[in-house]
Amino acid sequence: METLLIATPAGSALIDITRQVQEAIARSGIQEGICALFLPHTTAGLTLNENWDPDVRHDILLTLGDLVRADPRHRHDEGNSPAHIKASLVGHSVTLLVSQGRARLGRWQGIYLAEFDGPRQREVWVKVVGE
Amino acid sequence: METLLIATPAGSALIDITRQVQEAIARSGIQEGICALFLPHTTAGLTLNENWDPDVRHDILLTLGDLVRADPRHRHDEGNSPAHIKASLVGHSVTLLVSQGRARLGRWQGIYLAEFDGPRQREVWVKVVGE
Amino acid sequence: METLLIATPAGSALIDITRQVQEAIARSGIQEGICALFLPHTTAGLTLNENWDPDVRHDILLTLGDLVRADPRHRHDEGNSPAHIKASLVGHSVTLLVSQGRARLGRWQGIYLAEFDGPRQREVWVKVVGE
Repeated sequence: METLLIATPAGSALIDITRQVQEAIARSGIQEGICALFLPHTTAGLTLNENWDPDVRHDILLTLGDLVRADPRHRHDEGNSPAHIKASLVGHSVTLLVSQGRARLGRWQGIYLAEFDGPRQREVWVKVVGE
Repeated sequence: METLLIATPAGSALIDITRQVQEAIARSGIQEGICALFLPHTTAGLTLNENWDPDVRHDILLTLGDLVRADPRHRHDEGNSPAHIKASLVGHSVTLLVSQGRARLGRWQGIYLAEFDGPRQREVWVKVVGE
Repeated sequence: METLLIATPAGSALIDITRQVQEAIARSGIQEGICALFLPHTTAGLTLNENWDPDVRHDILLTLGDLVRADPRHRHDEGNSPAHIKASLVGHSVTLLVSQGRARLGRWQGIYLAEFDGPRQREVWVKVVGE
């Protein structure tokens, strides 16, 4: 199991971690199998989305921010309930298929850490299973 | 593969199943690998979120309830379409990393069955792969 | 690893791929383990939901369409930002438990490709790990 360290730059951000994940898979030496990514945080998520036009990331964060707003009925007194809610909508675990020593991704896909309560130092855990 | 039986207490609830999952992993005898959790229901989900302040669970359920409401245009005649929709937003499968015989979780993370159409008797299926 | 080819019929649709997934698992010859499904696209997702009443699929797509609408503040100039956003809410990877050579599913569960920007030719990748 490997730990990736990712510094997030802002309150909300989608940070491309594709290269770091591929490097961790290469270091595992496993050629064929699966790669489980796990985010050990409660106010951020893991997702896949377009790796080409950064406007897609802008639009995702904009609309998530509209959907899940601060609400005076929220009781959690740290004030970051919207980040917790977005995290459960996006999710914390992603499983990739590994072939010829690399995660197979779609042509337009990147792997993103979805920060909803940054900036922070975050971890992504990587485990490759196979042979 | 193990089946956990979870009785949910209310129409909507986030039930902490962390201890039961860790016990199932321990019984598997596997020290290093991954643990796949699967929820075999269509009006509930599986998620990870804060294990400390119960107000976080309150706020998640409150805002999900605001986002996905009963709608006269819904056609499903059991009346529980909001629960089906929330289930697909939260998701039914989570993959955890297993190290030294336990699921590794973040400091503030718990594993939750997200009930959206209870109270009911639910199952969570657990499979550990590794060595 | 296998590739399933799925033609989607409309702009938004939930296409039942349960049979194709079970057939791919059978071809793998693996009896006990897990099956990772991965969708290599950025404007569609993978989900599990009710396999019986098609009205549930109607209601899911209706409400997702209400939640995530076209927005003049979206910058991505292909005009399909709502599809990208829905994809990250529903997710791209699902892990199933395999027992006696089949994915174990709940009585009312089917596996769905969630198309949000069709009609298109889509792929679903399948990898079974176990013995």
